[in-house]
Amino acid sequence: MTSHSSKSGHATKANCPVSSPSLDGLWAGPVVSDNVYKGNGFPTLSVDEQSIAIELPKKYPPFIASVKKRGLNLSEIVCSTFSMGWFGEKESRRTVRIDCFMKESTVNIYVRPISGLTIVVDLGRMKIVEYHDREIETVPTAENNEYQVSKQNPPFGPKQHSLASHQPQGPGFQINGHSVSWANWKFHIGFDVRAGVIISLASTYDLEKHKSRRVLYKGYISELFVPYQDPSDEFYFKTFFDAGEFEFGLSTVSLIPNPDCPPNAEFIDTYTHSAEGAPIPLKNAVCIFEQYNSIMWRHIETGISDEFIEESRTEVNLIVRSVVTVGNYDNIIDWEFKASGSIKPSIALSGILEIKATNIKHKDEIKEDLHGTLVSENSIGVYHDHFYIYYLDLDIDGTHNSFEKTSLKTVRITDGSSKRKSYWIIETQTVKTESDAKITIGLAPGELAFVNPNKKTVVGNEVGYRLIPAIPAHPLLTEDDYPQIRGAFTNYNVWVAPYNRTEKWAGGLYVDHSRGDDTLAVWTKKNRDIVNKDIVMWHVVGIHHVPAQEDFPIMPLLSTGFELRPTNFFERNPVLKILSPRDVKWPGCPK
Amino acid sequence: MTSHSSKSGHATKANCPVSSPSLDGLWAGPVVSDNVYKGNGFPTLSVDEQSIAIELPKKYPPFIASVKKRGLNLSEIVCSTFSMGWFGEKESRRTVRIDCFMKESTVNIYVRPISGLTIVVDLGRMKIVEYHDREIETVPTAENNEYQVSKQNPPFGPKQHSLASHQPQGPGFQINGHSVSWANWKFHIGFDVRAGVIISLASTYDLEKHKSRRVLYKGYISELFVPYQDPSDEFYFKTFFDAGEFEFGLSTVSLIPNPDCPPNAEFIDTYTHSAEGAPIPLKNAVCIFEQYNSIMWRHIETGISDEFIEESRTEVNLIVRSVVTVGNYDNIIDWEFKASGSIKPSIALSGILEIKATNIKHKDEIKEDLHGTLVSENSIGVYHDHFYIYYLDLDIDGTHNSFEKTSLKTVRITDGSSKRKSYWIIETQTVKTESDAKITIGLAPGELAFVNPNKKTVVGNEVGYRLIPAIPAHPLLTEDDYPQIRGAFTNYNVWVAPYNRTEKWAGGLYVDHSRGDDTLAVWTKKNRDIVNKDIVMWHVVGIHHVPAQEDFPIMPLLSTGFELRPTNFFERNPVLKILSPRDVKWPGCPK
Repeated sequence: MTSHSSKSGHATKANCPVSSPSLDGLWAGPVVSDNVYKGNGFPTLSVDEQSIAIELPKKYPPFIASVKKRGLNLSEIVCSTFSMGWFGEKESRRTVRIDCFMKESTVNIYVRPISGLTIVVDLGRMKIVEYHDREIETVPTAENNEYQVSKQNPPFGPKQHSLASHQPQGPGFQINGHSVSWANWKFHIGFDVRAGVIISLASTYDLEKHKSRRVLYKGYISELFVPYQDPSDEFYFKTFFDAGEFEFGLSTVSLIPNPDCPPNAEFIDTYTHSAEGAPIPLKNAVCIFEQYNSIMWRHIETGISDEFIEESRTEVNLIVRSVVTVGNYDNIIDWEFKASGSIKPSIALSGILEIKATNIKHKDEIKEDLHGTLVSENSIGVYHDHFYIYYLDLDIDGTHNSFEKTSLKTVRITDGSSKRKSYWIIETQTVKTESDAKITIGLAPGELAFVNPNKKTVVGNEVGYRLIPAIPAHPLLTEDDYPQIRGAFTNYNVWVAPYNRTEKWAGGLYVDHSRGDDTLAVWTKKNRDIVNKDIVMWHVVGIHHVPAQEDFPIMPLLSTGFELRPTNFFERNPVLKILSPRDVKWPGCPK
Repeated sequence: MTSHSSKSGHATKANCPVSSPSLDGLWAGPVVSDNVYKGNGFPTLSVDEQSIAIELPKKYPPFIASVKKRGLNLSEIVCSTFSMGWFGEKESRRTVRIDCFMKESTVNIYVRPISGLTIVVDLGRMKIVEYHDREIETVPTAENNEYQVSKQNPPFGPKQHSLASHQPQGPGFQINGHSVSWANWKFHIGFDVRAGVIISLASTYDLEKHKSRRVLYKGYISELFVPYQDPSDEFYFKTFFDAGEFEFGLSTVSLIPNPDCPPNAEFIDTYTHSAEGAPIPLKNAVCIFEQYNSIMWRHIETGISDEFIEESRTEVNLIVRSVVTVGNYDNIIDWEFKASGSIKPSIALSGILEIKATNIKHKDEIKEDLHGTLVSENSIGVYHDHFYIYYLDLDIDGTHNSFEKTSLKTVRITDGSSKRKSYWIIETQTVKTESDAKITIGLAPGELAFVNPNKKTVVGNEVGYRLIPAIPAHPLLTEDDYPQIRGAFTNYNVWVAPYNRTEKWAGGLYVDHSRGDDTLAVWTKKNRDIVNKDIVMWHVVGIHHVPAQEDFPIMPLLSTGFELRPTNFFERNPVLKILSPRDVKWPGCPK
């Protein structure tokens, strides 16, 4: 049931297999296209060229003079590349900004920025093409910024006791190649150098219908837009598109067994590639594990005399985890599967804040807007947003689906027909076209669902899955601002479009220096028909980030996510007949 | 640090100790008040009187006739009490409605209602005072409604493997009486017959300041308002206040070890009491356990040549769980503590939908609004809301706090000072009075925090905790409708009021048949000053519930909650120097 060709009669999609890190294609495949791209924007930045670019300042006399002027030690400086965005320039070259940091006495480089410098490198010519040295702000101290355990002094704490886990029957999942089976779920874990982890062909086995039923054809994070909110020359351009500029797959890091995933996790390795196409093995790219979550369902019934009913089932879920570290930030990307039919994708942020240096040591000295929080002496944690957009090609019990918007509406009773004055009803509407499917969550109460209008339950409800969103974040930049034109896919929290194999990257295929002419917001202007078609949901989850001192010098997880929950997909609770796993006692230890 | 008198200089509050199930007070205490209450509303319903009331119909000739007319077996009928609310009546008596169900062939009584009957019992006179028999709708079948494992037929599934947990050093928490210490947290677990579990005196030990710092003086769920959305005679009155009418403490059930809490949980017993005051022991009322959650923080640094930095810390959290079962619904109430300083209260719903019988077997037969989802043949899952209101007497690093509202605002750049056209700033305002502290979450981007204006961090930020809410639910009944007047505390998602020992129950002290004259919405009309005072946050979390077939015949958990997160409370990440607990291999005996 998990073969790619199962989507029979749908030629376009069947021709577009989920990427998988097989090397066969490298030898066997023909040249697919020899088109030369002439539009706006450039391809993603390669690790190789960035590695060369960040060494340029150290041999550049004006930079060496700036370092000397600041009294800093050149050998303790480390530089990093930053994409530049687009701000209305008529002509764009493939340039990056370089910011430099002190690695003296700490590896936490991002909290020790060297301020006041503008360094622009042309990657084509691989040379510095612009350089300014403006006002100097103090480089923040290295004190209290270390996060490596080996460099910390006691006392450590707070203390935690070990919590070991063990599965005497082994894990409840099987991995066969890149296909995973667990409980009633089967799905495929793909890996793409741009998207990172791709979950595809996710189907759930319906115990009552005795068959596997498709839920998600393909899901992944298409883009991550991170606009900083400081308009100064040092920060204005920081409006990053982490997937399109730096690649989520290329930025996926090896998971550290045990802290990153629990001891009962299994790992999958994969490959990325260098700019020349050489494969780079990536160990422990993905981990898969079961996790005790909570109760699956329960009830205690005391309403029947002489009977006492108590029933409860343990909820153990399956989690697929990967971590994408783009420079300072670590994005923990989880896909959680529940036997009750839900899929809960979530993201969590950790890593290091982007810090701006300031001479200010105390809030009382602040005279004008710092565009961030004073998180430590001389250190501003600059305000910014994190907008993730998920590509969710749901195929609810088949390829052809419709998008339904249910509104909850108050009805006022004025005819004395009830002692009540009001109640609410639902109004469900099949959304006809892309324009009507642009949803700002939170404006009005309701539910959003993908349904299969061709499949009904016994009592006649259309089978469906609904979206249960987290609290939404809406963009705050003006719609005509350049970064917002490029990140226009954040204008709505939900978009629905017909499946189109070229529409994969919400911010466009060539995002570096892009001008917003190849985004989800542009494609959906065609206002295509989305009724009873192969359609895709795009969902934006976001966080407005006002940094706090607790985020410094390394940030405890801040998370958001959503749930895709079966809604009249099953005839009844699909885990009604589940048994809680047997309790296992840990063997006694000799005293 | 956890003694009740630690709130020195605050006489009112110190006189109001957290309730604890000690029996000493029963003998030692004087009569506190001999006032006779003459206002609106009645006390909570006792189990004893409800037990008598539900037997009345079976001896009531008109009911026996109705049963005969329907061809039902009287001995297979079980009845239940339902609070009646208030719908503008000038005079109220202490009455309840009785609904009856078939227990024939199933213990899932709520899905087999006998329709068309109005039975009102006067609890004072303990007799049926009103009786009508209207139209008859089919009693839904008992088929496929059973949830007891002992009554189910194979095949069972989906299959899950055991996931054992073990703590070789023992649990990481200590329970001393009703006080709990874990990691950097200390708090008290109280139990109140009305509120159920009360978390109080929660303080976190600050490793850097070498002292324990108060966060939460007292927190509990003050009320749960569940208005159904069917205006018919059979359902209009179903606008329940589960805490004030049925009592959360009295409705707390014994937890079932293992399914309800994991094997590493410890349990606390408590007492409730009968109407006559006799103590009733309640075993396993609360469980406490540690749970692997995720990563606490992490970073991989590849930006420094010749160095590879990888650091990650395991997140194990502490959970305090209780379950309140009020009739058909089970409310799973968790308080989760994180070493990083957050408290995450959450509620999850399970149990049985309130079903209305219908002759309709298929959606195609529907001619008019059913006020619910056809979840099975002859069975309507009626639309309703669940509004929980938390009482959160935060004492951030001391008793005197202020409430701060931070707005995120777009600034348009028109002077050419930046290549950007816009960015956002924050505007923080100390909320002066109760009226300005009534917040509808989601209308505008921002943050809400309790701060201590008398305590600042080294760099001058006020120490605080902020609220990270779930997606909010706003009431849909009209403000002048009787249930909404009684449940007016749902009009806003957040309220802030000065501490007042009489303001405990958001829907009023006497809620049964109440008229809304003693609610949070009324108290806050005084518009008291809330700046730098002992203040309380009231937070409403809600779910609009459009039932789905998956919720039938027993419902997989549906959850919501929120996070109280330190925001400039600590000088820096308070878990910077935490060590991941040691990995333990099966069988993991210490050497």
